[in-house]
Amino acid sequence: MVRYFQKMSKKISQVPGALIHVGEQRDHKVNISLMTYDADELSEVNINEIDESTYSPDEKSLKWLHLDGVHDIEHIKGIGEFFGIHSLALEDILNTGHRPKIEDFESYQFAILKMLRYDTLDKQVKVEQISLILGPNFVISCQESKYEIFSNVRQRLRKGHNRLRKWGSDYLFYTLLDTIVDNYFTVLENIGEELEEMEADLMNNSKQDSIHELHKTKKDLVYIRRLVWPLREMIGNVLREETDLISEKTSPFLRDVFDHIIQVAETIDTFRDMVGGMQDLYLSSMSNKMNEVMKVLTIIATIFIPLTFIAGIYGMNFNTQASPFNMPELNSPFGYIGVWIIMILTGVGMIFYFKRKKWL
Amino acid sequence: MVRYFQKMSKKISQVPGALIHVGEQRDHKVNISLMTYDADELSEVNINEIDESTYSPDEKSLKWLHLDGVHDIEHIKGIGEFFGIHSLALEDILNTGHRPKIEDFESYQFAILKMLRYDTLDKQVKVEQISLILGPNFVISCQESKYEIFSNVRQRLRKGHNRLRKWGSDYLFYTLLDTIVDNYFTVLENIGEELEEMEADLMNNSKQDSIHELHKTKKDLVYIRRLVWPLREMIGNVLREETDLISEKTSPFLRDVFDHIIQVAETIDTFRDMVGGMQDLYLSSMSNKMNEVMKVLTIIATIFIPLTFIAGIYGMNFNTQASPFNMPELNSPFGYIGVWIIMILTGVGMIFYFKRKKWL
Amino acid sequence: MVRYFQKMSKKISQVPGALIHVGEQRDHKVNISLMTYDADELSEVNINEIDESTYSPDEKSLKWLHLDGVHDIEHIKGIGEFFGIHSLALEDILNTGHRPKIEDFESYQFAILKMLRYDTLDKQVKVEQISLILGPNFVISCQESKYEIFSNVRQRLRKGHNRLRKWGSDYLFYTLLDTIVDNYFTVLENIGEELEEMEADLMNNSKQDSIHELHKTKKDLVYIRRLVWPLREMIGNVLREETDLISEKTSPFLRDVFDHIIQVAETIDTFRDMVGGMQDLYLSSMSNKMNEVMKVLTIIATIFIPLTFIAGIYGMNFNTQASPFNMPELNSPFGYIGVWIIMILTGVGMIFYFKRKKWL
Amino acid sequence: MVRYFQKMSKKISQVPGALIHVGEQRDHKVNISLMTYDADELSEVNINEIDESTYSPDEKSLKWLHLDGVHDIEHIKGIGEFFGIHSLALEDILNTGHRPKIEDFESYQFAILKMLRYDTLDKQVKVEQISLILGPNFVISCQESKYEIFSNVRQRLRKGHNRLRKWGSDYLFYTLLDTIVDNYFTVLENIGEELEEMEADLMNNSKQDSIHELHKTKKDLVYIRRLVWPLREMIGNVLREETDLISEKTSPFLRDVFDHIIQVAETIDTFRDMVGGMQDLYLSSMSNKMNEVMKVLTIIATIFIPLTFIAGIYGMNFNTQASPFNMPELNSPFGYIGVWIIMILTGVGMIFYFKRKKWL
Amino acid sequence: MVRYFQKMSKKISQVPGALIHVGEQRDHKVNISLMTYDADELSEVNINEIDESTYSPDEKSLKWLHLDGVHDIEHIKGIGEFFGIHSLALEDILNTGHRPKIEDFESYQFAILKMLRYDTLDKQVKVEQISLILGPNFVISCQESKYEIFSNVRQRLRKGHNRLRKWGSDYLFYTLLDTIVDNYFTVLENIGEELEEMEADLMNNSKQDSIHELHKTKKDLVYIRRLVWPLREMIGNVLREETDLISEKTSPFLRDVFDHIIQVAETIDTFRDMVGGMQDLYLSSMSNKMNEVMKVLTIIATIFIPLTFIAGIYGMNFNTQASPFNMPELNSPFGYIGVWIIMILTGVGMIFYFKRKKWL
Repeated sequence: MVRYFQKMSKKISQVPGALIHVGEQRDHKVNISLMTYDADELSEVNINEIDESTYSPDEKSLKWLHLDGVHDIEHIKGIGEFFGIHSLALEDILNTGHRPKIEDFESYQFAILKMLRYDTLDKQVKVEQISLILGPNFVISCQESKYEIFSNVRQRLRKGHNRLRKWGSDYLFYTLLDTIVDNYFTVLENIGEELEEMEADLMNNSKQDSIHELHKTKKDLVYIRRLVWPLREMIGNVLREETDLISEKTSPFLRDVFDHIIQVAETIDTFRDMVGGMQDLYLSSMSNKMNEVMKVLTIIATIFIPLTFIAGIYGMNFNTQASPFNMPELNSPFGYIGVWIIMILTGVGMIFYFKRKKWL
Repeated sequence: MVRYFQKMSKKISQVPGALIHVGEQRDHKVNISLMTYDADELSEVNINEIDESTYSPDEKSLKWLHLDGVHDIEHIKGIGEFFGIHSLALEDILNTGHRPKIEDFESYQFAILKMLRYDTLDKQVKVEQISLILGPNFVISCQESKYEIFSNVRQRLRKGHNRLRKWGSDYLFYTLLDTIVDNYFTVLENIGEELEEMEADLMNNSKQDSIHELHKTKKDLVYIRRLVWPLREMIGNVLREETDLISEKTSPFLRDVFDHIIQVAETIDTFRDMVGGMQDLYLSSMSNKMNEVMKVLTIIATIFIPLTFIAGIYGMNFNTQASPFNMPELNSPFGYIGVWIIMILTGVGMIFYFKRKKWL
Repeated sequence: MVRYFQKMSKKISQVPGALIHVGEQRDHKVNISLMTYDADELSEVNINEIDESTYSPDEKSLKWLHLDGVHDIEHIKGIGEFFGIHSLALEDILNTGHRPKIEDFESYQFAILKMLRYDTLDKQVKVEQISLILGPNFVISCQESKYEIFSNVRQRLRKGHNRLRKWGSDYLFYTLLDTIVDNYFTVLENIGEELEEMEADLMNNSKQDSIHELHKTKKDLVYIRRLVWPLREMIGNVLREETDLISEKTSPFLRDVFDHIIQVAETIDTFRDMVGGMQDLYLSSMSNKMNEVMKVLTIIATIFIPLTFIAGIYGMNFNTQASPFNMPELNSPFGYIGVWIIMILTGVGMIFYFKRKKWL
Repeated sequence: MVRYFQKMSKKISQVPGALIHVGEQRDHKVNISLMTYDADELSEVNINEIDESTYSPDEKSLKWLHLDGVHDIEHIKGIGEFFGIHSLALEDILNTGHRPKIEDFESYQFAILKMLRYDTLDKQVKVEQISLILGPNFVISCQESKYEIFSNVRQRLRKGHNRLRKWGSDYLFYTLLDTIVDNYFTVLENIGEELEEMEADLMNNSKQDSIHELHKTKKDLVYIRRLVWPLREMIGNVLREETDLISEKTSPFLRDVFDHIIQVAETIDTFRDMVGGMQDLYLSSMSNKMNEVMKVLTIIATIFIPLTFIAGIYGMNFNTQASPFNMPELNSPFGYIGVWIIMILTGVGMIFYFKRKKWL
Repeated sequence: MVRYFQKMSKKISQVPGALIHVGEQRDHKVNISLMTYDADELSEVNINEIDESTYSPDEKSLKWLHLDGVHDIEHIKGIGEFFGIHSLALEDILNTGHRPKIEDFESYQFAILKMLRYDTLDKQVKVEQISLILGPNFVISCQESKYEIFSNVRQRLRKGHNRLRKWGSDYLFYTLLDTIVDNYFTVLENIGEELEEMEADLMNNSKQDSIHELHKTKKDLVYIRRLVWPLREMIGNVLREETDLISEKTSPFLRDVFDHIIQVAETIDTFRDMVGGMQDLYLSSMSNKMNEVMKVLTIIATIFIPLTFIAGIYGMNFNTQASPFNMPELNSPFGYIGVWIIMILTGVGMIFYFKRKKWL
C-alpha cells in the first residue's frame, strides 16, 4: 500500500502552506546544481544555498537549477523565497504523494510529474516525483533521489550547437518533460515483455502463481494509469491556453509530448484489457484442466464400481446345498470364467460407451 | 442501511422549507460558541441565543459562530431569522441525510459537507454532516455531535499572527473546508491499511470471513464515494464562478482543496479497483484450494477402487473342486503373494501415471 | 413485462396526435375537480365537463383542475380544445407508457412524470403516470387512478395563510412535482429496508429463493431508474432556460426538487451496486457452502475406501492349506486384532493428515 | 453474420460514388409509384422511368415517389440525375448495409433508416433499409422489398381532409419517419413477450437450450441497438439546426418522433439489462440445480460406504478356531443381529447428522 | 507483443526530432515513384533522390510522390528538407509505432494511418503504417513495405477522364484515405467470417482450443480498435476546421470517409460484444457438458454402491450354526433369488426416482 498511497497524516492539522516533507525517508545530502548557458557559453556549478552571490537573476543567459532531493526543507524554502514561489507550490514539491498537475501561477508555470523506472531486479516499477518550475529565463527541477534522469539533457547542453542552447527556457522545460515521458515507454516495454512471457506461460501450462503475478501487474497498471491520466488533461490545458511563457516555436514540441502521453495512456489501457483477458483465460484453463482430471478419475471409479459389485455377488455365502436355486453358478465348472467374461464385457462396454459419448 | 440512507419519511407531506430534524436521534444540549476576532484581538463566548445583545453584525471584526448540534430546531430557526438565511437552506441543515453541495445565495454561500471519521474500535467509518455558511464578515458552522473537529483551527486562531487572523472570512471558510477534507485522507489511510492487511491475509490463506469483510469494505467505499464525488463538481463550480465573497487571494487555496478532493476521489476509485481485484483473487484461490483438495481425495479413492475390485475377485466363493477352471489361483501356493504383487504394481503404476500427468 | 413496457400496438398505424388511451384497462367514472383560489378565498367544485359555464379563464384567481383518470378520451379532448393544448401533448397524456419529460410549449409547460408507490402487501412498486400542465394562472393535473396522491396539497390549500395560496400557479406546479418526488423517497426507503433484510438473511444462511428475490429487486431498480433519470436532465433544462411561467421566487424551490431527484437517482445507483454486491456474495457463499459439504462427504468416503480395501483383502478365499504363503495372517491368533489395529491406525492417520492439511 | 454485417468487398477498389448494389440478392421488378396531391386532388400512377413526361417538377402540388427495390441501378441513377442528387447519396441508397444517418444537402435532406419487422414464424427480426429524400415539394422513398410498410400512409393520403394532404412535404417526410419508428415498438413488443416467456421458463425449470436462446436475443438486441442509436443523435441534430425544408409547424412532430426513438433506445437498453440478469439467473440456477443433484448423490454414497466397510469386516476369513480373539462375533448367536443394529444406527445417525447440518 | 507495442527504446535519450527508424527491420531498396498529372497529361517516373532536377515545384500540374519504405532515413530527410516538413513530422513518419493522427501544419496537412491487411494464410491481421502529406499541389505518401495498396488508385489516374485527374490534390488525398479505410472493411469481413465459423463450432461442440482462439480474436479487436478510434476524432476535427487545403467540393467525400470510419468503429465494438457473448456461451456450455458427464457418472456409482452393500452383507461369515438368528437367509432355499430381487428392485427404484427428479 505504501507505494500506492503516501501517508499524509503528518500533514493533517497543519497550517496550509506549511512546509513538511511527506514521503519515503531519505537523508542523503542534497546537491543544488546550477547550469548557466546561452548559445555561446555554458558554466556548471554546485551551490549550497541560493542567494544573490550565487545567482544573478538579471543576466540574459538561461539558468537551470536542479535539486537532487526534496527532504531538506531549508533548500526548498530558500528557493521559494528567492524566486517568489507560492507557499502552496512549495508545499506540493515537498509532498511526494501529490497527484501530477500543471498549474499556471502567471509569472511561472508549476508542474508535478512522476518519473517511472522499471527495476529489473525486483521486477517492480519505482516512482519518483519530479517538480518543474518554468520561469521566463530559468527552469527549476527537483527530484527525490540522486538517480540521474536528466544526464542526457545535460550532455546535450554541454555539446552545444543545438536547439537546447539556442532556444528559450520553455524548450528546456519541454526537454525535461519529454525525458520523463520517454521513460514511461521504457517502463511499458518492460511490462509488455513481462506480459508476453506470462501469456506464453499461460498458454502452455497454468501454475497457481500466475494469478498472483497477474494480480500484481494489474495493480501496477492501475497505479501507473493514475499517474499518467491527469497529465493528459493538464498538457491539453496548457496547449489550449498558451501562456506567454511558452513560445509558438515550442508549441509543436509540446503537442508531440501530448501525443506521447496519449499513446502511453492508451497502451496502459490496452495492457489492462490484456491482463483482464489473461485472467479470464487463466481461470477457464484452470477449471478446464481440473475438470479433465476429475472426469478421468470419475470414469475410472465408475468403471470399477459395477465390476466390484459383480465380484461382491459371488462373494455371498448362500448355502448352495440348501437349494439348487442358491448360487448354482458357484458350482458350475464355467462359473469363474463366465464371471470374468461378464466383467470384461461390462468394462469394455462402458469404455466404448464413454468413448462414443466423447467423455474419454 | 441506516448508515447509507437517512429515513426521510418524517419529512414527506410537509410544507417545503418546514424545519424538521432528520437523522440520528440526539439529545445533548446544543452549545453555540462565538469567536469574534481581527488581526489584533480575539474574544470567545458561549451564547444561548442569537440576538442583537449577543451579536453585533455591524462590527468590523470577523465572527465565527459554531453550533455543536442541529437537533434543536429553535436554534437553527433563530439563526436563520437573524441572518436572513433562506428557509430551504435551514431545511437542508436539519436534514442530516442531504447530499453534499455548495449553493450560492448571493449574499452568502451555503455548503453542506460530510465529515468522515474512522472509528478504530468498530473498524467503521462514522459520518457527520457539517453545514457552513459564508457571509461577508461571518462564518456559521453547524455539526451534528460534540466531536471536536475544528479544535486545531481554534488553536490557530487563538495563537494569532497568521493568515487566519489577518485575512477575511473566506479564508476561515477555506480553513474549515480544508480541515474536513484533510480528515478524508486519515480515513483513507485507515482503509488503505485495512486493505493491505486483508491482501496479505488473502495471499497466505483465504478464510471464509474474508469475503464478508471485502463486501463490507466495498460497501463503505461506495458510500464514501457518494459523499465525495458531488464535492468535486461543486468546488469546481465555485472556482469557475468566482463570487464576490471569495477574494482572489483565497482562490489558490480553494484550488488546493479542489486538488485534494480529486486525489481523495481517485484514491477511492483505486481502492474500489483493489477490492474488486481482491475479490477475484479470493474467489480464484478459494476455488483452487477446493479443487486441490478434491483432486487429492479423488485420486486416493481412484487408486483404491481397482485394488478393492481385485480383492473382491478373490473373495468369490466359486467351488474350486467343481472344475479346475474355477479360481485355480486360490489353491496355488503363490496365489496370495501374486495378488499382492499385482495390487502393489497396479497402485504404484497408477501413482506414476498420475504423477506423469501432473495430477499429483 | 407488462409493467416494464406498455403495449403500444394499438397506437401503431394511427394518425399522429390521434387520441387513443394506452395502458392498463380502467373503467371508473372520471371525476374533474376544480379548485379556484387566491390568498383570500377558495372554492372547490366537481364538474362534468369543461366549458365556459364551469370555468371562466379571465378571473384573476388561480385554478387547479385535477382529473382522476385518463381513460375517458372525451374529457381529455374537451380540456385540450378549451385550453388550446397541442394534440401531441394530449396524445402523450393518454399514452400512460410515455417516458417522463418536461416540454416547453411557450404558452404552457407540459410535464409527464411517474408516481411511484410501494405496495406493502405485494412487496411491489406500483407506477402511475401523472401529467401536469402549467399555464399562466392555472395548473391541470391528470392521474390514472383514484388513488389520492395530492390530498395533503389540497389540505394545505384549504388551510390557507401559506405560500401556496399567496404565490402563483408555478408554486402550485412545484408543490405537485415535489409531492411526487417525495414519494420516491418512501419507495426507496421500503426497498432499502427490504435490501437490509435480504442482506442479513444472506449473511446468516443463503436460501435458493434469495437469488430470485435479488433478481426481482434488481429489475425493479432498473425500471425505476429509467423513470427517474430523464427527470434529472429535464428539470436541469427548465432551470437553465427559465421561462416566463416560472418566477424567480419559485426557482430555488425547483432547484431543491432537482437536488432531491439527483439524490433519488444516486440512491438508486447505490442500491443497484448493493444488489450487485449481494448477488456476488450470494453466489460465493452458496458455492462455499456447497464446497464445504462436498469436501466433508468426500473425506468420509476417502477414509473408508482404503479401510474397505483392507477388509476386502482378508475376505479373499486363498487356500491357506495349499501353501504357508497363502494368507498366513488368517490363521494367526492375532490376525483379526492386528487388522483392526492397522485399520484404526490408517483411519486416524488419514484424519490427522487431513487436519494438518486444513482440509477438515 | 450476414445479418449483422453487409459484405462490402464488391465495393472496394471502386471509384467513390460508383453505383453498386450491396446487400441481399433480389430480382423482382422494381415498381415506381408516384402520388401527386394537394389539399383538393390526388392522383396515383406507376411509372417506368422518371423523365419530364412522367414528372413535372414545377407543379404546385406535392409529389411522393416510392421505389420498392434498390437493386435496379438504372432507376436510382435516373432519379439521381433528374433530381440532382449527389452521387454519394445515391451510392448510400444502393449500399443496404449503410448505417442510419440524416444528412443535409442544402437543397434536400437525405435520410437512411432501417425498417424492422418481427417475423413471427422464424422468431427473427428482419431488417430492410429505407432511404428518404425530402425536397421542397417532393419526397422520394426507396425500400428494398415489396413489403408494404407505408400502406396506411397511402390510405390516409387517399382519404384526404387531414394534415397530410394540407401540410407540406416535410409533414409527409415526418409521417414516413414516424411509421418506421412505430414499427420499432411492434418489434420491441414481440421481443418483450419472448423475454417474458423465457423468464417464466427460467423461474420454473432451466433447460440447456435457454442459454442459446438468450444468447441469440442478446445478439439481436446488440444489432437493433446499433440501428437505433445513430438516429437518436441524428434527429437531435436536425431539430437543432432547423433547415428551411422543415417548417416550424412540423417541428413538434419531429420532436415527438425523437422522443419515441429515445424511448426505443431506452427500452432496448432495459431489455439488454434484463437479458443480462436472466443469463446470471440461468447460470446460478443451473449450478444450484447441479449442486443439489451432486449433493444428494454424494450423500447416498457417503452413507453406504461405511456400511459396506462394516459388511466387509465380517466377510474376512480369519480362522475363528486359531484363536478366541479371531472374530469371536462370527460365532456369537447375536452377531448378525448386532451388526445389523450397528449398521442401521450408523446410517440413521449419519442421516440425522446431515439433516442437522442442513445438508439434506 | 511485438505487434501490439513498437519498441521505442532506440528513441529514448535522443534529441526530439532526431530521425531514427522505429519498427520492423526491413532492408529492401526504397523506391520513390513520382506521378505528375493534370486533366490532360500524366507522367510516371521512379527517382532516386528528390531535388530540383527531378521535381519542379512551380509547375501547375499535381504531383504524387510515393515511397515504398521508410527505413532509409536519407530519403525521408531529403524530402523533409525539400518540402520544408517539420522535423517532428519526419520523426513520426519514421516511427512506425505512432498512433494515427491528422495534424494541421498550416502549409500542409500531415496524417498518419494504419493500413490493415488480413493474411488468410496465418489468419492474422497485418498492420503497416502509412503517412500522408497533403500540400497545395502535391501529395506525399509513405508506406513501410512494397505491398501495393494504392495500385487501383494508380490505375484510375492512368485511365483519366475522372474526378481524380480533374480535381485538386485534396481529392487525391481523400482517395488514398478512402482506399485505406476500405481495406478495414475487408479485414472486418474476414474477422466476421471467422467469428461466424467459431460461433457455429461453439453451438455444436466446444473444444478446448476455442477459448484460445476467442482470446486471440479479442486481442486483435482490441488492437484494431486502438488504430481506428483516433481516426474518428481526427477526421471529425478536419471536417469542422475546414482548412484552405481542402476544397468545399471534396468535403462531402471526406464526410463519407468519416461515416465509413464510424461504421468500422461500430462494427469492431459489435464484434467485441459478440466475442464476449461467445466466451460466456463457451464457458457455460463447457461447464454444462462437464456437469452432465459428472452427473451421469455419479448416478451410476450411486446406484451400484447400495447394491454392493447388499452383496457385502451376504458375504459376511457369521456362523449360521451358532444361532438361528445368524443369517438364516443364507440357508433359505430362496435366499439367493430373494437377494437378486431386492437388488433389482433397489436399482430400478433408484433409476425411477432419479428419472422423476429429472436427474437422468
